Amino acid sequence: MTYCVGIAVHDGLVFMSDSRTNAGVDQIHTFSKMHVFSQNNYFYVLLTAGNLATTQGVVARLNKDIKDAPTQNLYTMQDMGEAASYVGEISREEQKTFDSKETDKGFSAEASFILGGQVLEDAPAIAQIYPEGNFIRSSKETCYLQIGETKYGKPILDRMIHSECDIAQAVMCALVSMDSTSRSNATVGPPIEYLVYLSDAYTPNLQQSLDRDHEYWLQLRKNWSDSLRRAFDSLPLAPGLDQLDTESRSNVMSIHTKPFG
Amino acid sequence: MTYCVGIAVHDGLVFMSDSRTNAGVDQIHTFSKMHVFSQNNYFYVLLTAGNLATTQGVVARLNKDIKDAPTQNLYTMQDMGEAASYVGEISREEQKTFDSKETDKGFSAEASFILGGQVLEDAPAIAQIYPEGNFIRSSKETCYLQIGETKYGKPILDRMIHSECDIAQAVMCALVSMDSTSRSNATVGPPIEYLVYLSDAYTPNLQQSLDRDHEYWLQLRKNWSDSLRRAFDSLPLAPGLDQLDTESRSNVMSIHTKPFG
Repeated sequence: MTYCVGIAVHDGLVFMSDSRTNAGVDQIHTFSKMHVFSQNNYFYVLLTAGNLATTQGVVARLNKDIKDAPTQNLYTMQDMGEAASYVGEISREEQKTFDSKETDKGFSAEASFILGGQVLEDAPAIAQIYPEGNFIRSSKETCYLQIGETKYGKPILDRMIHSECDIAQAVMCALVSMDSTSRSNATVGPPIEYLVYLSDAYTPNLQQSLDRDHEYWLQLRKNWSDSLRRAFDSLPLAPGLDQLDTESRSNVMSIHTKPFG
Repeated sequence: MTYCVGIAVHDGLVFMSDSRTNAGVDQIHTFSKMHVFSQNNYFYVLLTAGNLATTQGVVARLNKDIKDAPTQNLYTMQDMGEAASYVGEISREEQKTFDSKETDKGFSAEASFILGGQVLEDAPAIAQIYPEGNFIRSSKETCYLQIGETKYGKPILDRMIHSECDIAQAVMCALVSMDSTSRSNATVGPPIEYLVYLSDAYTPNLQQSLDRDHEYWLQLRKNWSDSLRRAFDSLPLAPGLDQLDTESRSNVMSIHTKPFG
């Protein structure tokens, strides 16, 4: 499994990905899921999720087109929408290739992508490309997009991220979102890679990888856990719980130890 | 959709459920998903998720057996494992009834349950019953069980809940978990019901329902959001972000306004 998130805020873009891949529980590997393409006034980051053979095939094909197809490649696109369509089309082709060779019913060649960056003079933008090849764009109201194991890390994004928030805040929120996801799902894990792109840079302004034992990653996890615990301890007690403490609990008898079932 | 959670801690059990049901986006209703059965030295709470016709059928059948089947009903069980098996069997029968009448391919009669409480002299316990009728039990290491839309609310449980935690803390954690879920998934919503069962009570020690506009529910949501924001603001800045602030950001040019795509 995978968790990747792309965030578009006023100052620019944030991309983050985990690096764990698995085909069954006994084939766990580490692969970067973040791919950067940049040249002149083109800057792209591609985040990948799904079938690793498909996503690697798509990245290889994108690179091949840059070399061999001077009329249609990432650096001939007129805007991010065109680029997302193009990646979606390649993804469908790759999936078809794999599916036709496939006999195992449980197999899926599906892959999803987040493509973001800046194309020519357009504003920086991100898009999420579905396995079917179609895509959606982020908007001012929904300024983050996720692929892979998205649900565990969504609540913190829903609470914190808005299009006017500081880009450093967006990185921090993505890190917390990644931490929550990797705690709750064993198939999402370090190294955690993040990239910050500031408008009109056409090059990464910050690119970083945090390994499992990276001092900062450990510090962040501990700090956030401790803070949550404090936040939790300061919550107002829910209706009825005060009475439970003073009246009912005094009636509680000792717990039986006979095992359940 | 649905979100229900059951937690077993040292002092007793906590049950929580939302009350929103939907069959498509234009058939949204409010139904309680928490059912209490208690008599003499038997106390059960049944939380339900999945096909509403199936879950209502199961509850009706459990009540019918209590009246009409003196040799096999919830109050003849010898332990919680036997009770979970019995509910699982009824669930399978109900699903079969509906499935055989069904022609729509997209239809699923599947339902999941959390059954918890105390049977005779056994320790209080909770079990999660799958659509297939089999079940798992909570343990000292994994002392909570979830059904329905489980992922959004899992991170906070993973962080906070352990078998030795205070029962009030378990309620508070379930409430935060429910808040996170209902924020991220529109099909999970109030009224939020919770029930606390303290060992050897054989009756609910606390049973409460929080409507959408319940003063406490609003207060909790605001308090937690504010605390998270403070916790968030106090996180140590990720590697590279400080340089981004001082060097790169001064180079940022004004954002283009041409729309993306």
